[in-house]
Amino acid sequence: MSEHSPLDVPEGDPFGPHNLPYGVFSTPAAADPRVGVRYGDSVLDTAAVAAALGSPHAALLAAPTLAPLMAAGRPVWQAVRAEVTAWLTDPAHRAAVEPHLHAVDRVTLHLPFEVGDYVDFYSSEHHAANVGRIFRPAEEPLTPNWKHLPIGYHGRSGTIVPAGTPVVRPAGQRMRPAGDSVPGQPGPAFGPSIRLDIEAEVGFVVGVPSRMGTPVPRTAFRDHVFGVCLVNDWSARDVQPWEQRPLGPHQAKSFATSIGNWITPLDALEAARVAPPERTHPLLPYLDDTGTDARHDGYDLRLEVRINGETVSRPPFASMYWTAAQQLAHMTVNGASVRTGDLYASGTVSGPEPDQVGSLLELTKGEGPWLADGDVVEIDGWAPGPHGVRIALGTVTGQVKPAGWTGQ
Amino acid sequence: MSEHSPLDVPEGDPFGPHNLPYGVFSTPAAADPRVGVRYGDSVLDTAAVAAALGSPHAALLAAPTLAPLMAAGRPVWQAVRAEVTAWLTDPAHRAAVEPHLHAVDRVTLHLPFEVGDYVDFYSSEHHAANVGRIFRPAEEPLTPNWKHLPIGYHGRSGTIVPAGTPVVRPAGQRMRPAGDSVPGQPGPAFGPSIRLDIEAEVGFVVGVPSRMGTPVPRTAFRDHVFGVCLVNDWSARDVQPWEQRPLGPHQAKSFATSIGNWITPLDALEAARVAPPERTHPLLPYLDDTGTDARHDGYDLRLEVRINGETVSRPPFASMYWTAAQQLAHMTVNGASVRTGDLYASGTVSGPEPDQVGSLLELTKGEGPWLADGDVVEIDGWAPGPHGVRIALGTVTGQVKPAGWTGQ
Repeated sequence: MSEHSPLDVPEGDPFGPHNLPYGVFSTPAAADPRVGVRYGDSVLDTAAVAAALGSPHAALLAAPTLAPLMAAGRPVWQAVRAEVTAWLTDPAHRAAVEPHLHAVDRVTLHLPFEVGDYVDFYSSEHHAANVGRIFRPAEEPLTPNWKHLPIGYHGRSGTIVPAGTPVVRPAGQRMRPAGDSVPGQPGPAFGPSIRLDIEAEVGFVVGVPSRMGTPVPRTAFRDHVFGVCLVNDWSARDVQPWEQRPLGPHQAKSFATSIGNWITPLDALEAARVAPPERTHPLLPYLDDTGTDARHDGYDLRLEVRINGETVSRPPFASMYWTAAQQLAHMTVNGASVRTGDLYASGTVSGPEPDQVGSLLELTKGEGPWLADGDVVEIDGWAPGPHGVRIALGTVTGQVKPAGWTGQ
Repeated sequence: MSEHSPLDVPEGDPFGPHNLPYGVFSTPAAADPRVGVRYGDSVLDTAAVAAALGSPHAALLAAPTLAPLMAAGRPVWQAVRAEVTAWLTDPAHRAAVEPHLHAVDRVTLHLPFEVGDYVDFYSSEHHAANVGRIFRPAEEPLTPNWKHLPIGYHGRSGTIVPAGTPVVRPAGQRMRPAGDSVPGQPGPAFGPSIRLDIEAEVGFVVGVPSRMGTPVPRTAFRDHVFGVCLVNDWSARDVQPWEQRPLGPHQAKSFATSIGNWITPLDALEAARVAPPERTHPLLPYLDDTGTDARHDGYDLRLEVRINGETVSRPPFASMYWTAAQQLAHMTVNGASVRTGDLYASGTVSGPEPDQVGSLLELTKGEGPWLADGDVVEIDGWAPGPHGVRIALGTVTGQVKPAGWTGQ
């Protein structure tokens, strides 16, 4: 062949045949959003191929969100993954498949699913201890409950945006600095956040729903969770300490949360499964993962945080104390149900080293500098795949726009 | 006529022509959920009447949720309300309308809309002070931020259930009582909640969405909020204090929240508008409602809490410090958007008197007794309407089922 084919993805490409993450895309010529699979620098129009080849999963793949596929359950996820793998790697399909690959920089990527409930956990011991030391210096860094349950809280699902969406600097209330009280105005100051921060996290996307009143055991994690994406939980650090007593963060977080455009199936991360850190406290049975069945509930995901192209941190997800399986068990142990499209995030991923922390709060020990208008934040990541290849997790990009910005 | 017509609603009926709340219902003969209006002891099949009479709003009313009507905006809300009023009160429509009234006890009521984000506020000064005294006895009852912003947090929208749905006693972690530590088991206890409680609240349902990055001013409240329902924010008081530091309540609340089946339009509550309590602290401009335009942002809603038929409290909503208009302004001042179907609740409604508090926590000063299996909780309410009639807010009923119950 004289021309390079998009099917000829170089060996070792992190979006090669062992990855195959799902997204939702459209093209100028076909504006209806449908399911795509990232392959090298291309997006495979799985809906078009499925229709052309008479796949039994054509309807799932023609949907405008991943929700129908996510709800279909693990046997279907595995069947579709096998089918897509064959389309991309079996020479017999080459002629049928090649016309349906689009350069990734020439498609529009959409939010891949409508988010149901969004829960943000707090599962890095290093992060929790770092934050405790900064926000509550007079107390023990970890609260007494921390080693007994994965602490988490609900965030705002309506302001979850796909990677690439600009993020406008939020306004909010903050405590005045000591000595800056204005006569007759003893209250808080108000204005655009002066301590805008990021949190590098990993998100877990629920596919199969559960029934209200029926907890999901830790061991059923992979029957319910469809896949993984990276998350930037933007945070206004000046708003947070003022507002969060006693009911937790609200306005400091609710203005925007960015998620990756590509959902990596759990089956692509089998080689990345690792043991979580040693448990230092005995766990209640529904959380206890010290048995032999659970030695590999952790995931060895390597994150990287870049600001304006410069790497500022490399947070190691394998260091997270609480696993996604424990988080799901805890979230439902009270009878709460999960729905297709629920998203739960790990909390900031911070490792033990100073250059492994997932927030500017920790990187700068609370002193700043913080994000400036125009800054571009990228959260990137990969996992070890089979045969030494890397599995790319997709980049969560977002540029900070000045307060009040409403344009494009 | 020899037979009583369901159109002949007695004068002064709290579901008379000045109320007309919306719900979603189906019947054995017509299983598709559609929009109904409560009238006396009947439900008007507005979809059927609209189709029969060629209403321009027929499609909105045939929808399986209130969302399309809610999204249509205030001019449409007013037009539909005028139309339904005419259908029910104009003798010319009697023959066309009468066949489409169904006895309310013979229809199935559905969750009236899919809930987007659910935010629970904490806007009763009496409640916040009572809870502070019980949970943090060594500190000032109100946190320093309380008089400067309406404190709120996100709750779980996926476990919001319509009135009548049984509520299963949740399990969870709680601190062991002092002296009850088991050798080798120094951690928390686990089991069905032994302090199951209620919170009587008022919910506000967002109709018209807002854009991300564009705050909704306090004065635009009635352009965005479609209506009101009562809420029971079930709470596990043993789980809450153990889990909620530092990120707020989660499992103590996420197992179930009950809402009324009938959404009362704001236009039915015009006669109930009152001044909120005197502001004791200066407010930032986006919250300041001391100007003449805002003298009536409060609502005089009279709640009643019954357990097993016995009235235990009569919480007065007019005593709430923060108004729903302020809550909406605060929720969006950081650029967060609201969506059609977002629900935000007032927080527990508690008045100054001991028999006006909206939770057992307050009624029993933290000592119990708490809810027992089988207990039936009803939260009821009404507002003054025009000409001295009452506007019923619909009853939120729920029966406590034992832990592990999965049947019907």
